[in-house]
Amino acid sequence: MKKRGIVYLVGAGPWDLDLITMKGKQCLEMADCVLYDSLANPKLLNYTKEGADLIYVGKKASKHSMSQEKIQELLKERGEKGETIVRLKGGDPILFGRGAEEAEFLREKKIPFVFVPGVSSAFAVPIYAGIPVTHRQHSSQVTIITGHQDTEKLNSMIDYQNFAESQGTKIIFMGFNQLKQIIEKLLSYGMSKKIPIALISQGTSSSQRVLVADLGTILSQVEKENFSSSPILTFIGELVEYRENLNWFENTPLFGKKVMVTRTRKQASDIVRDLSLLGAEVIEFPLIKILPPSDKKSFESFVATSFTYDWLIFTSPNGVEKFFECFFQRFVDSRSLGGVKIAVVGLATKKKVESYRFSVDLIPEKYHMESLVDALKKENLKNQKILWVR
Amino acid sequence: MKKRGIVYLVGAGPWDLDLITMKGKQCLEMADCVLYDSLANPKLLNYTKEGADLIYVGKKASKHSMSQEKIQELLKERGEKGETIVRLKGGDPILFGRGAEEAEFLREKKIPFVFVPGVSSAFAVPIYAGIPVTHRQHSSQVTIITGHQDTEKLNSMIDYQNFAESQGTKIIFMGFNQLKQIIEKLLSYGMSKKIPIALISQGTSSSQRVLVADLGTILSQVEKENFSSSPILTFIGELVEYRENLNWFENTPLFGKKVMVTRTRKQASDIVRDLSLLGAEVIEFPLIKILPPSDKKSFESFVATSFTYDWLIFTSPNGVEKFFECFFQRFVDSRSLGGVKIAVVGLATKKKVESYRFSVDLIPEKYHMESLVDALKKENLKNQKILWVR
Repeated sequence: MKKRGIVYLVGAGPWDLDLITMKGKQCLEMADCVLYDSLANPKLLNYTKEGADLIYVGKKASKHSMSQEKIQELLKERGEKGETIVRLKGGDPILFGRGAEEAEFLREKKIPFVFVPGVSSAFAVPIYAGIPVTHRQHSSQVTIITGHQDTEKLNSMIDYQNFAESQGTKIIFMGFNQLKQIIEKLLSYGMSKKIPIALISQGTSSSQRVLVADLGTILSQVEKENFSSSPILTFIGELVEYRENLNWFENTPLFGKKVMVTRTRKQASDIVRDLSLLGAEVIEFPLIKILPPSDKKSFESFVATSFTYDWLIFTSPNGVEKFFECFFQRFVDSRSLGGVKIAVVGLATKKKVESYRFSVDLIPEKYHMESLVDALKKENLKNQKILWVR
Repeated sequence: MKKRGIVYLVGAGPWDLDLITMKGKQCLEMADCVLYDSLANPKLLNYTKEGADLIYVGKKASKHSMSQEKIQELLKERGEKGETIVRLKGGDPILFGRGAEEAEFLREKKIPFVFVPGVSSAFAVPIYAGIPVTHRQHSSQVTIITGHQDTEKLNSMIDYQNFAESQGTKIIFMGFNQLKQIIEKLLSYGMSKKIPIALISQGTSSSQRVLVADLGTILSQVEKENFSSSPILTFIGELVEYRENLNWFENTPLFGKKVMVTRTRKQASDIVRDLSLLGAEVIEFPLIKILPPSDKKSFESFVATSFTYDWLIFTSPNGVEKFFECFFQRFVDSRSLGGVKIAVVGLATKKKVESYRFSVDLIPEKYHMESLVDALKKENLKNQKILWVR
């Protein structure tokens, strides 16, 4: 009997890697083939088995690297081959994710499908900016719309008057390109210029930025701050004011830091967890494992841009070797490393660094991670970029 | 230096266990103490370490087993002791979960907190019923309100006229007790009696039930079907009609089955995953691990109600022994097992069952799981309850 294929429509959650569900992770582990969007964190692909076919299908507002029709054809083709397919989408495939459309298509083609909902950006992104979407005393309603329709014009399915007059919290997906028109509409329907608004760019990631203003001033603020890195979620409502007190994420000790951990997942998992809970964006990079080309490329691109970092942390001689092997394939001159400072945990690692004729700037008193973290805390790490090669 | 406590405000997601996030699971693994709600699946507590303090704080609409003040006092007390605390809430702590209130309190008391968003029932529950909340051609807006406020009366913070006139999908949390008043309001503000509505009871669980009607008929349908098992999510909008085509979850081969797997998580994980993806509600029950009393009680209560099941599956002699040891502590007469049929995988397990003087109804040709699943498929399992003791 021919093996039957199946498509898992999986929500990756927002950028924070650990917000994927257990079920989503399990699906990635089983997948023969993954079709992933631009809004799903590609580091999640590290969960796939070796040999899995990883296909980027893009899809950013107004710029599709693969048409919806092509994506669906691909799902069909792979499904009919009997493959286990994961269709990985940023956030939740149910909310403005075209999940329903793809499921309709699969049903027509008699290919079984399973929905694996993800953590939606609608609620997670605001709370990472310190802004709750509801509050028992202040907001019992959340209204979510999408600014983007098929073209750049305002979505004709939205009744902006009704939206303007709705109570509670307003959330707009993909509305940034039409922000001017949206704000004008809302003001024309009687919303006060004093209503607070927050734009959250790249929410839940180490690059998260938040712009807070009110409806009257937001457009000039956007220009002044040159605020533009997508994806951007728009939050309108009184609860924006909670950010002042509840801004927990940006105040975590390692917020804004990208940390790369290069060990097998099993070995690294405790450290990854601790770093992640301290607010760092942890990029797990299992060096010891033989990696699919997509991952190797990602390592190389990190090494290639290592001179843009402030700190390079090595915690094993093996990591040092892998790093410089890759580094000198790319660069002829050692000075291409720029002014990056180097920290190591132990003497063996220090020696290894020196064997490549680089000096070590920081080695903790005790040769373990906790001690390194303590030592690093004494350095001024504000706005510093760290690359960790383990 | 005194260790600083920390509170993780964790969303458990809806009932489906595997919809918890990786981060949520990690927090449970670390926790010294968990305060959990009635809407969070208590089986998630299996992730906690031995000796963790598991405190049920209840909270169902209109019936609080512990007052909000007491919960907050407890968070403070444990936090000041330096404990790692998980505040586990069903769904997403951000959406009608009082997450913001608790965070405000913690900030005041200078106890650090971290939000770990969960998969929200707002989107996951409908899609498990085959109903998407948005569709590019049919709905670009989702409005979510809570029916429940402090009392049984309609939530005064909601403008029902504006809500009635809003486009797209309407979702009501905790509105079932006020359903009559809500429907009357919506009709009085001009909504058509023909608008489809779905009530989804215990969504994403093996007991999920869905009642579909329209605004004109729903109240009489509720009465007729005696529809009442909470939690109930209310979905109003045209997309209800998609259920006919997209009802994937209730059509999975093992939908409606509760399956208990009694091994350590590591050993069982592949089977759990497969069963779960086939639609079963898998209750992992690691027998080999020494369990906290709360779990032992849960095993006992399963054994005590085993006569209500149709099938009892044993896949190891060890499972048989543990089961009957517990069974005969509870029952004197072997016939207390009722008409339950017994399936086993291998000869040793069969022998063990027979040593307790019970006969085996089903043993697959080949002694492995796949073969047992195939054999079971040939039985008519529709509406049958299965208890699996591994």
